[in-house]
Amino acid sequence: MLEQLKAEVLEANLKLYRKGLIVYTWGNASGIDRDKELVIIKPSGVPYEELKAEHLVVVDLDGKLVEGDYSPSSDTPTHLVLYKAFPKACGIAHSHSLYATIWAQAKRAIPPLGTTHADYFHGEIPLTRPLTPEEINRGYEVETGNVIAETFSRLDPEAIPGVLVYSHGPFTWGKSASQAVENMIVLEEVARMAWGTLMLNPDSGPMAAELLDKHFFRKHGADSYYGQKK
Amino acid sequence: MLEQLKAEVLEANLKLYRKGLIVYTWGNASGIDRDKELVIIKPSGVPYEELKAEHLVVVDLDGKLVEGDYSPSSDTPTHLVLYKAFPKACGIAHSHSLYATIWAQAKRAIPPLGTTHADYFHGEIPLTRPLTPEEINRGYEVETGNVIAETFSRLDPEAIPGVLVYSHGPFTWGKSASQAVENMIVLEEVARMAWGTLMLNPDSGPMAAELLDKHFFRKHGADSYYGQKK
Amino acid sequence: MLEQLKAEVLEANLKLYRKGLIVYTWGNASGIDRDKELVIIKPSGVPYEELKAEHLVVVDLDGKLVEGDYSPSSDTPTHLVLYKAFPKACGIAHSHSLYATIWAQAKRAIPPLGTTHADYFHGEIPLTRPLTPEEINRGYEVETGNVIAETFSRLDPEAIPGVLVYSHGPFTWGKSASQAVENMIVLEEVARMAWGTLMLNPDSGPMAAELLDKHFFRKHGADSYYGQKK
Amino acid sequence: MLEQLKAEVLEANLKLYRKGLIVYTWGNASGIDRDKELVIIKPSGVPYEELKAEHLVVVDLDGKLVEGDYSPSSDTPTHLVLYKAFPKACGIAHSHSLYATIWAQAKRAIPPLGTTHADYFHGEIPLTRPLTPEEINRGYEVETGNVIAETFSRLDPEAIPGVLVYSHGPFTWGKSASQAVENMIVLEEVARMAWGTLMLNPDSGPMAAELLDKHFFRKHGADSYYGQKK
Repeated sequence: MLEQLKAEVLEANLKLYRKGLIVYTWGNASGIDRDKELVIIKPSGVPYEELKAEHLVVVDLDGKLVEGDYSPSSDTPTHLVLYKAFPKACGIAHSHSLYATIWAQAKRAIPPLGTTHADYFHGEIPLTRPLTPEEINRGYEVETGNVIAETFSRLDPEAIPGVLVYSHGPFTWGKSASQAVENMIVLEEVARMAWGTLMLNPDSGPMAAELLDKHFFRKHGADSYYGQKK
Repeated sequence: MLEQLKAEVLEANLKLYRKGLIVYTWGNASGIDRDKELVIIKPSGVPYEELKAEHLVVVDLDGKLVEGDYSPSSDTPTHLVLYKAFPKACGIAHSHSLYATIWAQAKRAIPPLGTTHADYFHGEIPLTRPLTPEEINRGYEVETGNVIAETFSRLDPEAIPGVLVYSHGPFTWGKSASQAVENMIVLEEVARMAWGTLMLNPDSGPMAAELLDKHFFRKHGADSYYGQKK
Repeated sequence: MLEQLKAEVLEANLKLYRKGLIVYTWGNASGIDRDKELVIIKPSGVPYEELKAEHLVVVDLDGKLVEGDYSPSSDTPTHLVLYKAFPKACGIAHSHSLYATIWAQAKRAIPPLGTTHADYFHGEIPLTRPLTPEEINRGYEVETGNVIAETFSRLDPEAIPGVLVYSHGPFTWGKSASQAVENMIVLEEVARMAWGTLMLNPDSGPMAAELLDKHFFRKHGADSYYGQKK
Repeated sequence: MLEQLKAEVLEANLKLYRKGLIVYTWGNASGIDRDKELVIIKPSGVPYEELKAEHLVVVDLDGKLVEGDYSPSSDTPTHLVLYKAFPKACGIAHSHSLYATIWAQAKRAIPPLGTTHADYFHGEIPLTRPLTPEEINRGYEVETGNVIAETFSRLDPEAIPGVLVYSHGPFTWGKSASQAVENMIVLEEVARMAWGTLMLNPDSGPMAAELLDKHFFRKHGADSYYGQKK
C-alpha cells in the first residue's frame, strides 16, 4: 500500500544518509498520507546501507501497526505527536547531525545571523526546555513530541520548520518527507555557519529584521520571486 | 548566441558546485561580453545537478531578457551594477561558502595574515556597510551592488577581487567567469585559514607590508615571475 | 587457523581505515578466541592499503607467537593486558583518531553532553592518569594496559567501552573486533560533538542523569527496546 | 636523465595533491641525486591535474637549468639552500596546507602535545623569525632558505624534519621526496590535532619528556622496534 509515498520516504531517508547527516542508524524520516491518516516511517535500527522500501513500516496516528514486518523507529511516537500538532506538516525528519546537535548540547537556540538562515527560517531556531525526570520516565518519546509542540505554541511551524531538542538533536518538518530532509540539511549548514560566526565574534548579534524579512519572503509566500514561475 | 561564453559560464557555475562552495542553489556565476554588452547568468533556483547550457539566461546591462526560457538569478541586478562599476571585470561569482559567510556574519573584514592571502588579494578583503532598511525595501539586489561599489570607491577592484556583504556572503570577480570562480575558491580557503589563525592567536596582526607586496607582485603585474612565461 | 576470526579482525582493521580514523599505520584492531585463549592482531607498520588476512598475527595471552610471518603490532602487550583485565571483551581497537586524540592531549575526560553519547557510553569517557617515567621506561606498552585497567577498577567496562590514554589517544573494546571498531567510530563522533559543544558553551554541564539512563538502557540490557527483536 | 628520481618526484608531488594538502599550485616537492648534485623539482604554476614527468625540471645546486622545457618552481632557491644546509636531506616538500599554515600565520611553533607528534618529530616544530624588509627585497626565496637554516643552527634536522615559515607555511624534508611528503602529511595532521587541543585546553602543556623520547625512539634509530625487521 501507499507505494508512491513509500518510495518518497525511502529516498528521503537515504538522502539524509548520503549527505553525511546520519552515522549508523541515528536518524529517521517519515511521511504521512493526510487523507488516509497513515504514516510511513523507517524501521528501528536497520542499517542504512541495507534499507529498502519493503522494510518501511506503516502505522496509524495512534501508533498501531498497519503494515510491515519490522518494528518502527523508536522515535515513532514523537513523529505522531508532531503530525497531530502541526496539521500542515506531511513529512518529518530527525538526525544527530553534527552542528545541530552541538547547539542542542550547548543548550542554545540558533540566532538568525545571516541570509542563509533567513532563506529558510524566519527567526531563531528554538531550543526546547529540558524534559522533567517524570516526563522522561513516563513516556520519553511521546513527551519529546509534546515539548516540541509546547515550544511552538507561540511560533509558526511553517515559518520555522525545525527545532533543537535539549541535550539531544534536531527535528525538522515540511510539506513532504523530502522537504523535511531539505530543511534538515539546511539546518545543519546554518548551525555550522552560526557556530563558526560566534567563535569568531561572540558579540555578533542577530541580523537586521528587515533583511530577515526580505530574504524569507523573497522565497516564501504570495510575494516570493525566487526561482522559476510555475 | 554567445555559445563559447555560455560554455565558460556553465563550467564556472559547475566548478563552484563541484568544489563544495554551493549547497542547493545558493550561488551563481556570470560572464559578460563587453563588446556586445550582454551578460550570461545562471537561472534562478535551478538545481546544479541538472544545470545545462540551454538553461542559462542572456540579459543586457539594464536587465532586459535577450535570450532564454528561464528567469535569471534573483541576484542578477547585483551582477549588473558590478559590471557597470568595475569596467575591467568580465566575470562575477556569488556563493554562501562556509568560511567566507562566517566572516560576513561576524561582520568582520578578513585581514591579510599570510602569503596565501597575499598571492591573490593585495590587502584586507573588505566588508560592506549594512544596508539601511530603506535600501533593503527599495531595491535589495540593486542596493547590494551599490554598497559593494561604494566599498570600492577607494579600493582597486583588480588588486582586491572580492568582498564580503554584511550578514550575507561573498562576491568575487575577475577577467572571466572562470577567474571569478578561482577567486571565490581562494577567498574561501583564505577565510578558513584566517578563521583558524585568529582562533589560535586572536592578537595575530596582519603580515608585514613588504611580504604582502612581495607575494602579490611576484604573481601580478609587469614584474611578476611566478608561473610559465607566455 | 581461526580463519573466521581472522576475516573478522581484518575487516575490523580495514573499517577503521576506510572510516578515516587511521592515518598511515596509526592504529590497530584485534580479536580473541576465548576458548583457545588466542589473540589475532594487525602486524606492526604494514600499510593498510596492502593489509591481507595472511599478514595477521596469532599470539597467546603471554604474547608468544603462535602463527604468522610478521611481527605483531607494537601495541600488542596493551591488548593482552586488557583481554586479561576485561574478561567479557572479545575485541579491542586503538587509533589516533582526530577528536578523541585532541581530548587525550588536552588531558580531559569526555563528559556526557547528549543522547548520542548516552546511547553508547553510560557516563563520562575517562582519561587515564599519566604514566610515570619509571613505567614508561620499564615496559611502556604493558604499563599502558595496566593504567587503563587501573582506571576501570571502579568502572564497568561494559557500560563504558572506551578510554582516553593521557597524551596519547583512545582504546575501545566490545564483544567482538567489529563492535570494538563501532565503539571507536562512535567515540570519535562523540568526542567531536563534545569538543564543538564546549567551544560554543564552556559552561554546558553534563546531561541530566535520567536522560543518560533512558538512552543507555533503551539500547542496552534486559529492558532495551531499540532495534528489531531477535 | 634521472628517470627513476623523476618518477619518484612526480609521485611525491601528486601525493601532496591527492591528500588535499595542495589547492591550485600552492606547493611543490623536489628530490636530489647527491652523487650528481642535481635537483628535480616541479615546474612553476603548472596545474597538478596535468602534471607529468616530462614537465619536471632538473637544476644544479646553483640553480642552473640542466634539463626541462619549463621554468622551475619559484621556490627553487629555497630548496637549493636547504639541500646545501641539510646534507642528509634528499627530498624537500612545501605546501600551504591548512593547519600548518594556520600555525605559521598565528606565529607560533607547534609544541609536542602527544604521541602522534612524538612518533615523527622529536620536539617542537619550530617557527622561523620573520624576514627583514631588506631580506624580502634582496632575495626573498634564498632568504627563506637561509632563515630556515638559521632556525636549525641549534636543532637536528633529522630529529625535526619540518619547519613553519613565519606568515607563510610549512617546509618538510626527508631521506627522499617521498619521505618529505610523508612528513608534510604528518605535520598537517599534528598541526590540526595541536590546534584542536589548545582550543579545548589552552593550558595544556607539552607532553612528558620521557613519553616524547619513548615514542620517537621506538620508531627511529638503533633501538627502534616499531614495524617489521628488515
